[in-house]
Amino acid sequence: MKNVIVGQSGGPTAVINSSIAGVYLAAKELGSDHIYGMVHGIEGFLKGEYIDLKEVLDDEKVELLKRTPSAYLGSCRYKLPKFDDAKDVYENIFAKLDELDIEYFFYIGGNDSMDTIKMLSDYAKENNKSQRFIGIPKTIDNDLPITDHCPGYGSAAKYIAASLKEVIRDNASFGVEKPTVCIVEIMGRHAGWLTAAAALAKGDDCEGADAIYLPEDTFDLDEFKDRVKKLAATKSSVVIAVSEGVATADGKFVCELGADNLAVDAFGHKQLSGCASTLADIIHNETGLKTRAIEYSTLQRAATHIASLTDIEEAVAVGKKAVEAADAGETGLMVTINREAGSEYKTSFGLYDIHDIANVEKKVPASMIDSANKQLTQEFIDYARPLIMGELTPIYTNGLPTHLIRK
Amino acid sequence: MKNVIVGQSGGPTAVINSSIAGVYLAAKELGSDHIYGMVHGIEGFLKGEYIDLKEVLDDEKVELLKRTPSAYLGSCRYKLPKFDDAKDVYENIFAKLDELDIEYFFYIGGNDSMDTIKMLSDYAKENNKSQRFIGIPKTIDNDLPITDHCPGYGSAAKYIAASLKEVIRDNASFGVEKPTVCIVEIMGRHAGWLTAAAALAKGDDCEGADAIYLPEDTFDLDEFKDRVKKLAATKSSVVIAVSEGVATADGKFVCELGADNLAVDAFGHKQLSGCASTLADIIHNETGLKTRAIEYSTLQRAATHIASLTDIEEAVAVGKKAVEAADAGETGLMVTINREAGSEYKTSFGLYDIHDIANVEKKVPASMIDSANKQLTQEFIDYARPLIMGELTPIYTNGLPTHLIRK
Repeated sequence: MKNVIVGQSGGPTAVINSSIAGVYLAAKELGSDHIYGMVHGIEGFLKGEYIDLKEVLDDEKVELLKRTPSAYLGSCRYKLPKFDDAKDVYENIFAKLDELDIEYFFYIGGNDSMDTIKMLSDYAKENNKSQRFIGIPKTIDNDLPITDHCPGYGSAAKYIAASLKEVIRDNASFGVEKPTVCIVEIMGRHAGWLTAAAALAKGDDCEGADAIYLPEDTFDLDEFKDRVKKLAATKSSVVIAVSEGVATADGKFVCELGADNLAVDAFGHKQLSGCASTLADIIHNETGLKTRAIEYSTLQRAATHIASLTDIEEAVAVGKKAVEAADAGETGLMVTINREAGSEYKTSFGLYDIHDIANVEKKVPASMIDSANKQLTQEFIDYARPLIMGELTPIYTNGLPTHLIRK
Repeated sequence: MKNVIVGQSGGPTAVINSSIAGVYLAAKELGSDHIYGMVHGIEGFLKGEYIDLKEVLDDEKVELLKRTPSAYLGSCRYKLPKFDDAKDVYENIFAKLDELDIEYFFYIGGNDSMDTIKMLSDYAKENNKSQRFIGIPKTIDNDLPITDHCPGYGSAAKYIAASLKEVIRDNASFGVEKPTVCIVEIMGRHAGWLTAAAALAKGDDCEGADAIYLPEDTFDLDEFKDRVKKLAATKSSVVIAVSEGVATADGKFVCELGADNLAVDAFGHKQLSGCASTLADIIHNETGLKTRAIEYSTLQRAATHIASLTDIEEAVAVGKKAVEAADAGETGLMVTINREAGSEYKTSFGLYDIHDIANVEKKVPASMIDSANKQLTQEFIDYARPLIMGELTPIYTNGLPTHLIRK
């Protein structure tokens, strides 16, 4: 028997589906009769929406799954209520688990999703339920505590650095004309891990970003303007990476800076630009310099075509580790990636109490940030570089990477 | 002897450097003593800025060059003046060519750049100059006449379709929640070739864009709103591709629609959003639907990491053809790509009078546009699909595609 169920939750990533592959492969190895997948996470499961992965996957499709962005099973943003507030929700979930003879429950997600594992494992303990609950880390934001890093981050970081190299080349093409200032906006409202990945672009064949602004540092508009003006005075191409989450000392996001006195448009609505576009406008209007704003938007979390092989392999491995842990009798834990000491990149996989992880946010430590020069330190490069290494070549059909979709 | 010079002009593309590789390889074969490269096109050359490609390239570097986005030599946007207005400019250019014993002059670019070849070849004829001038087509916009298509287009089209598949997967992840409308803005102010490439995303593993708006059709805001509302009533994910150049019947760009009554912001400036962002705001404000605007920006012309091999090979071939043409005594022509009849994709390379090409713009023909359904017809798919076929795997260093840069 040993039926299992796996679900995905929170923002999609380029490699979240590789953890489904890991759960599927390990559970098949274990001899599970059914390997269920919740459709749209716990929210869909509550409505009875699930599929049996054994009916839809085979070795070839697992290879496609590892090359498919976003959430193959569908995601959700659903926070379980407190026990006393909604007993029926928990009874509903456990009745369904019992009905399907599900013994192990796996949930792939970030901080919020780990709360689901915490609530369900706590409920099971209090109510003498036999099911085991293990969390599988996943977030491009890389902001889960305890684990060295999160699956999904390496691939997003690889996309950000690779695209930034291309943007830097593009922006440098018109050297004869007056300087062009290009501002690239990268995801991460509170933690700057993704924006920090811009620092990986620098190398023998790339001058790198001229400045990198993380949300961990307070944003000072005057400092920013001064820096850009100085850069533009000596360089024909200026490229700056900013986190969508940069905020001024009074706690205002930069994208809100321009909005205060913004009157309504022809349709009677306020128009709010992104932070790169706000900063590009400010620089252009003050200096007359040609500016361009680029927002990586969902491209950075969906670009499986240039995913990191290291990331994909680790995403598969944490899925497998979760199944092994449940089968060893564990519950109420999240799988962690532990980096071994030494200059060579080596990892092992561990487990940690979900209560210390759910709803906690890990930011970029000060030792990795060169605040004065708006760059990252070597410590960050040493930390992040191994995570973007390797590629898994897409399988092309009609000139485009092939994906696996639910029919 | 047979010294040659090559320059790049206009907007950068993912494969413009492959045409430099083509010129270099053919000229080396020809036994040229010097293969010069103008730094920043004719504008830089006028200031005496050039390098000798024989001193900086070798076989290994040619492979990197083919994998390097933007303009390796640097680009410019410089329109040669009329003969009578600036005799000194022409005398300066030809004196430099004579001084360097340059016999063949190649210029890689789009409509505007071909004007340079026209002016210089005309001047040479009128003034009995021996130099020969051949244009090499390059533009992601694909709007040059006569030639079946332009190097640069296939790679941009491949990036657009591949990214759109990823965006569509990403946008579909939250099916349980209310519909998300994602509007993707693609380059092309007057010709819709790039936006049309969104149609290539559709296939067995992708539902494709729900609507594609080209600048060739007049944009009707009411039709757009009705269509989005109808789509959102039946689908949980709506993805729409729009050209940056879509304009209403009175000739206004959509990005200007919201700006009329837009008052100044906190800094005293008007903020102008892009067209996708304007449309996303309009839909959100009218319907309350969750919307997202994505602008591919320069990513679509710089993404050499997923360039089309067909495109790269053709870009090399048009460079070689230009050298052969000049060596055969031709001048005042542009190289064209001619598609042979039949269902199999086969091309040959021709030459055409530059006077019929310079400053002429080719739009997407009506037969390729399904205006009623806001889609492209099979004729377009059959035209564009072969152009995105094949890949040239990047050479990775430290986890990122390696480029060749001028030191």
